[in-house]
Amino acid sequence: MAPRALDYESLNENVKKVQYAVRGELYLRASELQKEGKKIIFTNVGNPHALGQKPLTFPRQVVALCQAPFLLDDPNVGLFFPADAISKAKHYLAMTIGGLGAYTDSRGMPGVRKEVADFIERRDGYPSDPELIFLTDGASKGVMQILNTIIRGESDGILVPVPQYPLYSAAISLFGGSLVPYFLEETANWGLDVNDLRQSVAQARSKGITVRAMVIINPGNPTGQCLSEANLREILHFCYQENLVLLGDEVYQQNIYQDERPFISARKVLMGMGPPVSKEVQLISFHTVSKGYWGECGQRGGYFEMTNIPPKAVDEIYKVASVSLSPNVPAQIFMGLMVNPPKPGDISYEQFIRESKGILESLRRRARMMTDGFNSCRNVICNFTEGAMYSFPQIRLPPKAIDAAKMAGKVPDVFYCLKLLEATGISTVPGSGFGQKEGVFHLRTTILPAEEDMPEIMDSFKKFNDEFMEQYEGHGGYSRL
Amino acid sequence: MAPRALDYESLNENVKKVQYAVRGELYLRASELQKEGKKIIFTNVGNPHALGQKPLTFPRQVVALCQAPFLLDDPNVGLFFPADAISKAKHYLAMTIGGLGAYTDSRGMPGVRKEVADFIERRDGYPSDPELIFLTDGASKGVMQILNTIIRGESDGILVPVPQYPLYSAAISLFGGSLVPYFLEETANWGLDVNDLRQSVAQARSKGITVRAMVIINPGNPTGQCLSEANLREILHFCYQENLVLLGDEVYQQNIYQDERPFISARKVLMGMGPPVSKEVQLISFHTVSKGYWGECGQRGGYFEMTNIPPKAVDEIYKVASVSLSPNVPAQIFMGLMVNPPKPGDISYEQFIRESKGILESLRRRARMMTDGFNSCRNVICNFTEGAMYSFPQIRLPPKAIDAAKMAGKVPDVFYCLKLLEATGISTVPGSGFGQKEGVFHLRTTILPAEEDMPEIMDSFKKFNDEFMEQYEGHGGYSRL
Repeated sequence: MAPRALDYESLNENVKKVQYAVRGELYLRASELQKEGKKIIFTNVGNPHALGQKPLTFPRQVVALCQAPFLLDDPNVGLFFPADAISKAKHYLAMTIGGLGAYTDSRGMPGVRKEVADFIERRDGYPSDPELIFLTDGASKGVMQILNTIIRGESDGILVPVPQYPLYSAAISLFGGSLVPYFLEETANWGLDVNDLRQSVAQARSKGITVRAMVIINPGNPTGQCLSEANLREILHFCYQENLVLLGDEVYQQNIYQDERPFISARKVLMGMGPPVSKEVQLISFHTVSKGYWGECGQRGGYFEMTNIPPKAVDEIYKVASVSLSPNVPAQIFMGLMVNPPKPGDISYEQFIRESKGILESLRRRARMMTDGFNSCRNVICNFTEGAMYSFPQIRLPPKAIDAAKMAGKVPDVFYCLKLLEATGISTVPGSGFGQKEGVFHLRTTILPAEEDMPEIMDSFKKFNDEFMEQYEGHGGYSRL
Repeated sequence: MAPRALDYESLNENVKKVQYAVRGELYLRASELQKEGKKIIFTNVGNPHALGQKPLTFPRQVVALCQAPFLLDDPNVGLFFPADAISKAKHYLAMTIGGLGAYTDSRGMPGVRKEVADFIERRDGYPSDPELIFLTDGASKGVMQILNTIIRGESDGILVPVPQYPLYSAAISLFGGSLVPYFLEETANWGLDVNDLRQSVAQARSKGITVRAMVIINPGNPTGQCLSEANLREILHFCYQENLVLLGDEVYQQNIYQDERPFISARKVLMGMGPPVSKEVQLISFHTVSKGYWGECGQRGGYFEMTNIPPKAVDEIYKVASVSLSPNVPAQIFMGLMVNPPKPGDISYEQFIRESKGILESLRRRARMMTDGFNSCRNVICNFTEGAMYSFPQIRLPPKAIDAAKMAGKVPDVFYCLKLLEATGISTVPGSGFGQKEGVFHLRTTILPAEEDMPEIMDSFKKFNDEFMEQYEGHGGYSRL
């Protein structure tokens, strides 16, 4: 009998080409070990609540009331919920046509999109149009939709940073396009050199690839750097010259752990450049409720904002969004609350600020503890996590370790990360899952384990690492290149 | 300057080819009219809560508690929530790792998948494996993922009923495959003749198309018919002979309005056929929390179950699901509650049964009112809605109306539906959005308007229709062919 349509042999080849290491071999092995009863520290994915981060109280109160609107009719509702949560719940329910159980417009509720536009205007100082803002089930879904809209076939190229968050490589594979890498420079704090971009585009062009879009992740994932305004201006100018759509993954914009380079949006820089650049460069910016001090990953809420996209193309994007009918409504409300949080004078303001500041300050301390911890380990060097949620140390694997990995049939950093997992329960993602320069090895871990657990985790990492290096290197060869 | 990547001219052609009439021209016009202050009855999409259906109380209590777990620590929680809702909330929270704000496994929580498997086993009498059940953000997302996995290019064909719910045609366009139509026979109560299927496959093959999968929608959308066991057996045998994956869209399985043909799942029939058919035919079945007496569309919850899909292919489907990280967690809990509702003896059982029966019995009455209403109109004939949520009357347009439509640059049924909308505020979907035989015209409306509003809506429809027919036909030509 011929292979059936859902036998491996006859699947869509693009599906088979997809790689997604964040939930790849390491994650699967960690899940197995967990089933066997081993304690696993899941730092493979930026999933704060899974590692003990508490949700912000106010938004949960509001969404709980929206889920159970009959509570609003109860005269005792004020015993359980503060008055501003009650009025916010009424505010959002009034935007729906039938509560959380009804599909909304496929772009999301107009009222929430207006709140997002107001937020962008306050943040950037330039007006934003709600008609060009679409709510999505998490930022990833938005990224996938836009890439699917752009990519026509394998001769369409997308510039993607290396190392990169593998959503981009996965989606480009799935939609049959070509990933055109540009390298971030580790020794320059994961900086981006526009001359390298030019080279990447030229090289792609020589292979017959038309580069159509460029991805930036700011703050960086997995690399944690924050782009400067000057750098963003260079990038936008480059996009203008090369006629590229810029996809700005800005989901970590609340996660900043230094004061020198606060987050600045690509859109703000673009608007500030004036015509012709500000009128020509097409930009899509992505945001989410999953990151920041919210960390509401499981709710799946996000948005994208479009700049300089003509109405006929917006209509096409709207049409395709319509096929999935509606982003989930509870997460639309989380998005509204995120961009329009309690204000000074509101009953819940103090608590909201206390909770969110507490999370952010602890993340800042954890970023420092982790960087310092890694840098205290043999053959490990690590840039400081300026932003986002990850640490991305370089692991200088001794030649004997690389040989041992080959013998085991593993990529060297996968070999290292598997051993780390078995020894310590720390579940990381090998650098090869994000791309890295030839012969250089990394791992990615989130900075999300609880602050009080961090010293023990870093001790346990150091013990494993230093023994591993000892085993494969002996006493003599300890060197920092 | 060359067109930019997100200018209409240079978009992915497959995106441009997508058509999705459920939110197409009629919906957009209805939204405009609503903005202008006109009262619109949105019967274009199966969105029960938008038309006043109340959510079931118990599941909303449970999910509200899960969103606000701090309520569970409050000694007074019992004043607001029944004990079984409290214990269910604890049951589901214990399945999560960090509550609703944490990503789950990309297939959904193992505990909920186990509850789905138990439900399927109770329903069908055959065991079901939770490892082959994936939770999704609504059924549509699952359908899209599976079609994307199957379709390799335009020479891959998918058999789709005509008329069909346009999710299928839209997804096939988006992923670059070929839709191979098979016609449902209106005069045989929208029955499916396997000889027609053979013809469709032969015709496709003569054009170089390999038919790889077949879609059935049972109960039918937009056509409302319920497939008999004998018919399902024929279909499965045909899939076996032709080596087709069967995609069983069974999202309306709770929506049955007659007693002669209760819902029977494709999987139950398949298992009952015994080997080799039961061991060979690949089947994917889809279900949702959006339909039935739940109608929780805005929550975006669904699942698909895979039968006879080999592990290597399941792994690929898992991998691609992982790129989107996790279906939204609140909707996973709704799914758990739907497949494992209150039981006799539970505190909330009586209320749950009263509410769900009330909705279903009213839908049954509305199905009858609507069919009878349409059949009382001039030049309109309509099969009874045996199941699902739609009425799909045939509108016999007089030649002069067809001419007038051509003059207006509209497809005749679009012309009719636009006039209906302007005259009455009733927002329907033209039959051409679902496919229909050449020269035959329909519209689809949901049966969801509130029961008390139904007489007025049908009167308003009849008045419009009969005047329309009068205008384009005059007194003489009234005939029923």
